[in-house]
Amino acid sequence: MAEERKIPYKIYLEENELPISWYNVRADMKTKPAPLLNPGTGRPMTAEELGGVFCADLVAQELDNDTPYFPIPQEILDFYKMYRPSPLVRAYFLEKELGTPAKIYYKFEGNNTSGSHKLNSAIAQAYYAKKQGLKGVTTETGAGQWGTALSMACAFLGLDCKVFMVKVSYEQKPFRREVMRTYGASVTPSPSMTTDVGKKILEAHPGTTGSLGCAISEAVEVAVKNPGYRYVLGSVLNQVLLHQSVIGLETKAALDKYGIKPDMIIGCAGGGSNLGGLIAPFMGEKLRGEADYDIIAVEPASCPSFTRGKYAYDFCDTGMICPLAKMYTLGSGFIPSPNHAGGLRFHGMSPVLSELYHEGLMRAVAVEQTAVFEAAEQFARVEGILPAPESSHAIRAAIDEALKCKETGEEKTIVFGLTGTGYFDMVAYEKFNNGEMTDYIPTDEDLAPGFASLPKVDYKG
Amino acid sequence: MAEERKIPYKIYLEENELPISWYNVRADMKTKPAPLLNPGTGRPMTAEELGGVFCADLVAQELDNDTPYFPIPQEILDFYKMYRPSPLVRAYFLEKELGTPAKIYYKFEGNNTSGSHKLNSAIAQAYYAKKQGLKGVTTETGAGQWGTALSMACAFLGLDCKVFMVKVSYEQKPFRREVMRTYGASVTPSPSMTTDVGKKILEAHPGTTGSLGCAISEAVEVAVKNPGYRYVLGSVLNQVLLHQSVIGLETKAALDKYGIKPDMIIGCAGGGSNLGGLIAPFMGEKLRGEADYDIIAVEPASCPSFTRGKYAYDFCDTGMICPLAKMYTLGSGFIPSPNHAGGLRFHGMSPVLSELYHEGLMRAVAVEQTAVFEAAEQFARVEGILPAPESSHAIRAAIDEALKCKETGEEKTIVFGLTGTGYFDMVAYEKFNNGEMTDYIPTDEDLAPGFASLPKVDYKG
Repeated sequence: MAEERKIPYKIYLEENELPISWYNVRADMKTKPAPLLNPGTGRPMTAEELGGVFCADLVAQELDNDTPYFPIPQEILDFYKMYRPSPLVRAYFLEKELGTPAKIYYKFEGNNTSGSHKLNSAIAQAYYAKKQGLKGVTTETGAGQWGTALSMACAFLGLDCKVFMVKVSYEQKPFRREVMRTYGASVTPSPSMTTDVGKKILEAHPGTTGSLGCAISEAVEVAVKNPGYRYVLGSVLNQVLLHQSVIGLETKAALDKYGIKPDMIIGCAGGGSNLGGLIAPFMGEKLRGEADYDIIAVEPASCPSFTRGKYAYDFCDTGMICPLAKMYTLGSGFIPSPNHAGGLRFHGMSPVLSELYHEGLMRAVAVEQTAVFEAAEQFARVEGILPAPESSHAIRAAIDEALKCKETGEEKTIVFGLTGTGYFDMVAYEKFNNGEMTDYIPTDEDLAPGFASLPKVDYKG
Repeated sequence: MAEERKIPYKIYLEENELPISWYNVRADMKTKPAPLLNPGTGRPMTAEELGGVFCADLVAQELDNDTPYFPIPQEILDFYKMYRPSPLVRAYFLEKELGTPAKIYYKFEGNNTSGSHKLNSAIAQAYYAKKQGLKGVTTETGAGQWGTALSMACAFLGLDCKVFMVKVSYEQKPFRREVMRTYGASVTPSPSMTTDVGKKILEAHPGTTGSLGCAISEAVEVAVKNPGYRYVLGSVLNQVLLHQSVIGLETKAALDKYGIKPDMIIGCAGGGSNLGGLIAPFMGEKLRGEADYDIIAVEPASCPSFTRGKYAYDFCDTGMICPLAKMYTLGSGFIPSPNHAGGLRFHGMSPVLSELYHEGLMRAVAVEQTAVFEAAEQFARVEGILPAPESSHAIRAAIDEALKCKETGEEKTIVFGLTGTGYFDMVAYEKFNNGEMTDYIPTDEDLAPGFASLPKVDYKG
């Protein structure tokens, strides 16, 4: 048994304690996540087919369900050292505020200019694009964190970066655009008239505020039509979860250093990149039967893919030009109601997490946004960090679990992922501060059109 | 000689290596900074007189020129642990980008929600207000960093917080206001019609965009007129430099840990709080004859108090209701030209730094804002942090010094203070990105009216 040391407020790993490989949880899964399918043939996408959209090395990572560890290239390790390790923080002040016997830790990924964990995968994807001799990459961004992260990575490596930003975020977060421009990226509000798919979507839905699904379609179209460009995606994909495993590996190393064994691991879930990364090594232990953890995905009640979606093949994008993924989905036509303030607005969920959830290896809760912002404000005031709305979903659930411990007297150890900061989300905070924030839970009717669009695919592997 | 260890990208002190006392550089000064004077009597302000405006413990710190170390109260040490230690970063990527033999380090104070070093003094001042049983505090804020920091500290301790925000910043940084509101503060654009002095200033200058000097006048008036309130100030004062010494003490501890002796120490200077804090222990060694350092204050060419100001007694505020301070000043009526984008817009300078500068123990350079933003962008792209305009003044000077080393081949070790992040300064970055940023150097005529307002004080101690 590890000697118990006094736990500092923040645990920082030394540079020589940082992970040097990413961990691929798929290697330990008995049932692998279902493959991406070619919507035309209904057959799994080949490396060659995927290579038209993604870089070759990333395709290899995407398809590899067996290799447990991928060494992190030295250039990426060096870049990581600019902003990693991220601290694992003991939330002493939050515990005191709640009067809970629970011990709460959070892994804080917001201390970099992108404001979130997204940079972990952005630099990896940009690195492989550069290595392949490409000119640039295209992508979509919702809340703007991923676009910012990718802009930073591209600026560092000298790659061109074209970002399609969901229109509602583009309007709510004008300053995000300027950060991306400062890093040399071009930013287009989506849907736009610059792509065929954008024009089509705008014709069908002239007043649309956009969605991640639309923006993905546009970015993919531009990548495919421009030689020397590939598309990169900030979440959902297996490769992204692989890169984000650095979060979980650092978290586990920090906990191990002090002999701490968590009972619960909580993360917000939109496309699943943060959650998948945070839980990776813990889920690995669980899959190998070495340990057990209560793993909780927290999603917005207004975009409830885990808790109300179907586990089925669906398009990742609104324009239906991307491969099909088997995932918990609300239908590729689903767009969260306009009063939804934060990110986490993707209609589907990472196929890896979907399979793990389907097998009962993790659970999910949906929370409403007013309650999320209440948790955000409470957290900000005692822990001193203004959290991103996305991250605040995890805070809400962690507080709720800690309050349960207060009732039962259990001294559970709770770890949650604080994915980012809310400095560019002040329009949403203003709404909350003015008492104008509202909640919306989709009705069955809201979901129906999306569900109806699910393709009739019955791939059995 | 210390064994040379490989220098990591970021040096984090362990919790048990953090400073537990503030260092008071005045104790080592042979000529003490000149005292604050009562503008009515021309005599030094007594503790009793100052006690009407400031908390008792802070008055004691303000007047104490002899005690070298003040123990940091445990509650403040605990608060510091939420966001300290701040990292001392080796700018490997910037060095490579510049091709310089210089070794560049920066102490990064921006990894907290206030976005700057201001939190170091905000929590101290709020703590002593709370200890004295006060209801709340009033203050002014320019760029918004100080106001945000004070809001955070007050929210943490349950104090009321009234902020007067320089009107031009209030308009350029609407989101700053929301951060302060999220932390429960009230924010009023200054000059306002809510105070007598605000009304008077608005009558005289109806179109004014405000200045720190105006906002100070308003905040002091409200503090003096409301029982249970005191005024707090984010810079200039001796007490603030004392609290900010935590920056320099951590920097020195981190350097000592790796046996690094800097040649130059560079910091931006507005009122002097960051610079005074950063250089404190190094200046102490210099004053005691134990070591020598080239210490450089960097100020905006558009608000050049060190390089073009007079060393004379002047008001700290535009309304001329505050005590007189002997400092390098452009005159209390001086307001930087409207095209000035960043902070550092105070007409005077810390009396401690003014005396040190006057004695030739440090030097100063003035830089123009377009060159500052060029440095900011270059830094952001290679070091991954989008810096505050204020901090970017120090970056500009550090880059210039490193380029001189490239010419001479000297392997100087340069340490600079990166006081904060620019996430709320995107209006200024947008101007820069659009090529619309301009420079303005005040003419002698611009300075004359301010200089003319200097009171005829001839206090000799």
